[in-house]
Amino acid sequence: MSALENRQIRLIARPSGLPKRSDFELVGVPVPEPGPGEVLVRVQYLSLDPAMRGWMNDARSYIVPVGLGEVMRAGGVGRVIASRDPVLAVGDTVVGVTGVQDYALAKAREMTRVDPQLAPLPRYLGALGMPGMTAYFGLLDVCRPKAGETVVVSGAAGAVGAVAGQIARIEGCRVVGIAGGEDKCRYLTSELGFDAAIDYKGEDVREALGRHAPKGVDVYFDNVGGEILDVVLSRLSRGARVGICGAISQYNSIEGVQGPRNYLSLLVNRARMEGFIVFDYAARYAEGVQAIARWMAEGRVKAREEVVDGLETFPETLLMLFSGENLGKLVIRVAKE
Amino acid sequence: MSALENRQIRLIARPSGLPKRSDFELVGVPVPEPGPGEVLVRVQYLSLDPAMRGWMNDARSYIVPVGLGEVMRAGGVGRVIASRDPVLAVGDTVVGVTGVQDYALAKAREMTRVDPQLAPLPRYLGALGMPGMTAYFGLLDVCRPKAGETVVVSGAAGAVGAVAGQIARIEGCRVVGIAGGEDKCRYLTSELGFDAAIDYKGEDVREALGRHAPKGVDVYFDNVGGEILDVVLSRLSRGARVGICGAISQYNSIEGVQGPRNYLSLLVNRARMEGFIVFDYAARYAEGVQAIARWMAEGRVKAREEVVDGLETFPETLLMLFSGENLGKLVIRVAKE
Repeated sequence: MSALENRQIRLIARPSGLPKRSDFELVGVPVPEPGPGEVLVRVQYLSLDPAMRGWMNDARSYIVPVGLGEVMRAGGVGRVIASRDPVLAVGDTVVGVTGVQDYALAKAREMTRVDPQLAPLPRYLGALGMPGMTAYFGLLDVCRPKAGETVVVSGAAGAVGAVAGQIARIEGCRVVGIAGGEDKCRYLTSELGFDAAIDYKGEDVREALGRHAPKGVDVYFDNVGGEILDVVLSRLSRGARVGICGAISQYNSIEGVQGPRNYLSLLVNRARMEGFIVFDYAARYAEGVQAIARWMAEGRVKAREEVVDGLETFPETLLMLFSGENLGKLVIRVAKE
Repeated sequence: MSALENRQIRLIARPSGLPKRSDFELVGVPVPEPGPGEVLVRVQYLSLDPAMRGWMNDARSYIVPVGLGEVMRAGGVGRVIASRDPVLAVGDTVVGVTGVQDYALAKAREMTRVDPQLAPLPRYLGALGMPGMTAYFGLLDVCRPKAGETVVVSGAAGAVGAVAGQIARIEGCRVVGIAGGEDKCRYLTSELGFDAAIDYKGEDVREALGRHAPKGVDVYFDNVGGEILDVVLSRLSRGARVGICGAISQYNSIEGVQGPRNYLSLLVNRARMEGFIVFDYAARYAEGVQAIARWMAEGRVKAREEVVDGLETFPETLLMLFSGENLGKLVIRVAKE
């Protein structure tokens, strides 16, 4: 084992604004040996998530920041190549927090075995992984849409938003997606069955929302924050629910977060805004995975992944999330399957 | 009847920033005769409320704006001096929306009879009126404090905040009030039984909150918005509830509302922010009045009113709410009892 080299991307500086290559270093270290209860995983795909940007800040949050000099935290899927735990065997495919590296040493009980025959591996980082769970529990448990209501999803062509919108459709809602660019909007309406899509890069969101949600917005599943949050707040219906899943437009702001100026719409409309963290639903992931897998089998939920090759591309590939270049779940392929 | 003059304060311009005398006119008109189902009320006390500022704006809200040239909307308490409805008799004391005038013509079914022997009349505009109901339902139904939790109330020496804080104490919570000035803070802790008070005009709210709410804020009952809302958001505990009752710091802002920059604390802490309007609880006012009246009789809820004489002082008296000069419920005495 120790003959193999493990390439790691480590965080070496706290980014100001957009992360850049010099905030990271690529190092090669020997591959470690698993101790009791541990497994060694050959990482095959890494998940790139907007939340990663928050993990790089030295701020109190729902999870400790990545320390300077530490391997950048990331979810991954890979194959067990050594095991000192009876629960996992060599050859098993597992998902979990692997970090941005070729080989991950992990506690066996913190990895989850998945079936590589049931779905392409990257999907376990997308619709069948954390983004899917985030969409499922955030929409159903926090936003609680009712049939006939109008649900608006921002970041709608992203890994979380696409699933959230499709579940809202299954629940019998009118679903309006907000995304950047004509391709994404066409994808939402033509492939995913959204009732309408608004291209925030190409049209006036306020005007389009008035057109596509004429009776007001009953549920807003927000992935972006910023100006779009303010526009949607101005269109809430009475008793609306705003689920705060993320705020990707604000994560790289150097001036600090822009607060929602229209938050008093919550008062006027007796509405609520609520934040959530997918980890709180860990005990119910099986329910979420089963539901989404069933809907996928039935053709009612579709998913797409955007695959970029090479661990070493991490600093630049991550930026695709913030420029909005990716369509669907963004993953890095670290090793051929 | 028509020999009497009815002085009215009418809104004649939409204020920019703080309302000023020239936004209103004082006119004298003949006192009208009630028609079928109507009563004529001699107004004795008028309620001055921060919400009045919103009613002056030409904006979509939970209630139609006061039209230009119309009598300024206000709650009031007074005596029925003529009735053409069997439900109310001459001599009855009633509360309802009277407007800023000496005599109000009202539909009998829209006025509520109260007992002038049970409480001083201004109290029916304060702890036993809309502010008391706002505190009761906003705290118990929206914020849902649990015994042992830390509850923070802003505008704590105001008509709503003082009652909300005292109810939270009755519910077994640790209660921290935020108010402006030493007198108000002393009133909160010495007379109303708050566990602590923070003088936002005289001390650093962030530092004081860390001291008085060391385990974080479980419930925030917000009457003020602005900087204080942001500070409290930064101290939320997990699962916290923020009730948006008002935002008096923002009502006169010419630059527009300052949004809460720390709203992502809702995400990190799985917290919720929810607005409410007291009118939604109209069917349950009797429950609220009975509870507060009982607590007052037991000495567990105390209330104070600040009485200013003279209908004609309305434009200037209203400003006391925004400068924070009043301690307790601000009312105008229109006529001797």
